Amino acid sequence: MTQTFSIQESQKLQLEPLKIPQRLLLGPGPSNAHPDVLQAMNTPPVGHLDPAFLALMDEIQALLRYVWQTENQLTIAVSGTGTAAMEAAVANVTEPGDVVLVGVAGYFGNRLVDMAGRYGADVRTITKPWGQVFKLEELRNALSTHRPAILALVHAETSTGARQPLEGVGELCREFGCLLLVDTVTSLGGVPIFLDEWGVDIAYSCSQKGLACPPGASPFTISSRALEKVTRRKNKVENWYLDMTLLGKYWGSERVYHHTAPINMYYALRESLRLISEEGLANCWQRHQKNVEYLWNSLEDIGLSLHVEREYRLPTLTTVCIPSGVDGKAIARQLLIEHGVEIGGGLGELAGKVWRVGLMGFNSRKENVDTLIEVLRKVLPN
Amino acid sequence: MTQTFSIQESQKLQLEPLKIPQRLLLGPGPSNAHPDVLQAMNTPPVGHLDPAFLALMDEIQALLRYVWQTENQLTIAVSGTGTAAMEAAVANVTEPGDVVLVGVAGYFGNRLVDMAGRYGADVRTITKPWGQVFKLEELRNALSTHRPAILALVHAETSTGARQPLEGVGELCREFGCLLLVDTVTSLGGVPIFLDEWGVDIAYSCSQKGLACPPGASPFTISSRALEKVTRRKNKVENWYLDMTLLGKYWGSERVYHHTAPINMYYALRESLRLISEEGLANCWQRHQKNVEYLWNSLEDIGLSLHVEREYRLPTLTTVCIPSGVDGKAIARQLLIEHGVEIGGGLGELAGKVWRVGLMGFNSRKENVDTLIEVLRKVLPN
Repeated sequence: MTQTFSIQESQKLQLEPLKIPQRLLLGPGPSNAHPDVLQAMNTPPVGHLDPAFLALMDEIQALLRYVWQTENQLTIAVSGTGTAAMEAAVANVTEPGDVVLVGVAGYFGNRLVDMAGRYGADVRTITKPWGQVFKLEELRNALSTHRPAILALVHAETSTGARQPLEGVGELCREFGCLLLVDTVTSLGGVPIFLDEWGVDIAYSCSQKGLACPPGASPFTISSRALEKVTRRKNKVENWYLDMTLLGKYWGSERVYHHTAPINMYYALRESLRLISEEGLANCWQRHQKNVEYLWNSLEDIGLSLHVEREYRLPTLTTVCIPSGVDGKAIARQLLIEHGVEIGGGLGELAGKVWRVGLMGFNSRKENVDTLIEVLRKVLPN
Repeated sequence: MTQTFSIQESQKLQLEPLKIPQRLLLGPGPSNAHPDVLQAMNTPPVGHLDPAFLALMDEIQALLRYVWQTENQLTIAVSGTGTAAMEAAVANVTEPGDVVLVGVAGYFGNRLVDMAGRYGADVRTITKPWGQVFKLEELRNALSTHRPAILALVHAETSTGARQPLEGVGELCREFGCLLLVDTVTSLGGVPIFLDEWGVDIAYSCSQKGLACPPGASPFTISSRALEKVTRRKNKVENWYLDMTLLGKYWGSERVYHHTAPINMYYALRESLRLISEEGLANCWQRHQKNVEYLWNSLEDIGLSLHVEREYRLPTLTTVCIPSGVDGKAIARQLLIEHGVEIGGGLGELAGKVWRVGLMGFNSRKENVDTLIEVLRKVLPN
């Protein structure tokens, strides 16, 4: 061992073991993890090519297909948080010069625009005020105008709480010969999704919302139709970590080493999917719907109004209008610091105008609504 | 809630809660996590903008500076495993057309070549047989020939077990006006590193080796000199998730939302860094060196020989020559399945020729060497 220099101690901190306050996470995510999921995550790691781990990967794939309602062979978890899965989606199917049409009605639509541009896409947009959704006819017109290679839509816009209906969009995309890419970050596990019935080609999500798992391993799926585009690429995917032509060989039967997976996150994800399977997907969706309706009624009972038209509201995330004269940021901070309850503020166009309240996964329970209403009553001006 | 289709149950699995075998992970990583780290990871998550979490991020930054021995302001953890941090390094500093000179003496040098090419670099290589290292004079000649914008070297080549000396390389890079990018995936926490003294501009690592943490949050650091190149870029970084111009605003004083961090992984990383700080960096390095020397002697005592010249061997990872006539893969499998001990096989040029034995982080202990030798005695032919 050659040690040429003396060690600088200036950055050495003398810290106590971790102490983190308990929070009820009713914001846009992360939401509280299910205790059984935390328990599973705590299992000591094994190697990323251990037979026990490879078997677990297969289970994750099957269960992801179930919660997404797809038969897509290449259905995996990406080794990062939801944004990594979004980037995987965009990076793999986008080639320089591709026309990518993005439906923008919130922050995450804009993120898709930014991302697709980085991969050389000729990005076009169709826009709506934040909180509204696109009608089939509007999408048809835009497809007809722009003739894109890919249509990208956000199923559950986390910044607005709006649910984009997807029935019929897949047929439209086939009519115009384009792929359908869908963001399901705030819908998977909590909002009815029928990926194959809807003709969705590429989708991604996260673990820390409807799946009740900590963030860090994120669902990704791609249809054989979209995969053909990937295999026909002229150039390599401009992202090594998220290249599905490589990842497919690790998750598939070849088991070729690609990168070290976040082992414990996969333990957690497997348990969160197992719990949904145990509950049953229909029951899980119905639970989210029932509890969010209770939330909506309870919020209106204390005089608050909601930003999105009822028909298009997400069961997972609700945008609540901040009453005029109320400092929304100060209220959210008070809820967090004094009562241990996190809710989110608005982003972009809705900054300062709404709070975002999530009831997702393990947190979609009546008692959490009661707790929130109780503390809101305390902190809101009469 | 509109539910148009009936739920397909074909992918629904009826699974038991997770059961994973206990393994002693003496391969190239992941290594076993420290029990206190697993404990910290199990803390229920808070939000990624929670004041408690922001404070924890600051602690991680300071402690990473300490273990790397750098004053770099932008020293953070990337939300993925080591390969994501590698990609962050390459993606941010590489612009299309940049000449990037990569020292290739193993698998991870080749990965850098592949990655840099994807970001449009004009990649040049200098090569050595796997297990050897570059001399200063060889690097000088290559810099003089190729005049690169970036020289990329692997400090600890995980595929060969060789330690690339870095004293004097930073001066060379300044002489030739290029940046120095260094892979410290298998050195951070276990091998002496003096990033600033050595004049390293960009470095990355992982959590699951010398830091004794599960994989999933990965150290990244960049000097102000290299950051200037990033801020002068003509085009955006071709990777949204890993764009340091955005990540710097989340980790810096502005705290601008970028993506949801893998909260629990950061709990774990903070604890692993705290434990190194408690042990003291010099003690930690010395422990790795002492235990690996015991390993080397013990392996030689049972008639095995080592692949790398003693002077350049890593204290964290040892490549052991597979004796002629021995099926290395079968032996490794027997160790894993019958004795619960994982060691790695060779990659690339060394496939079938070596085993890779890691003694990293929490696993760098005398009793683990004794266990390995005991089980090797049982499974190796006399």
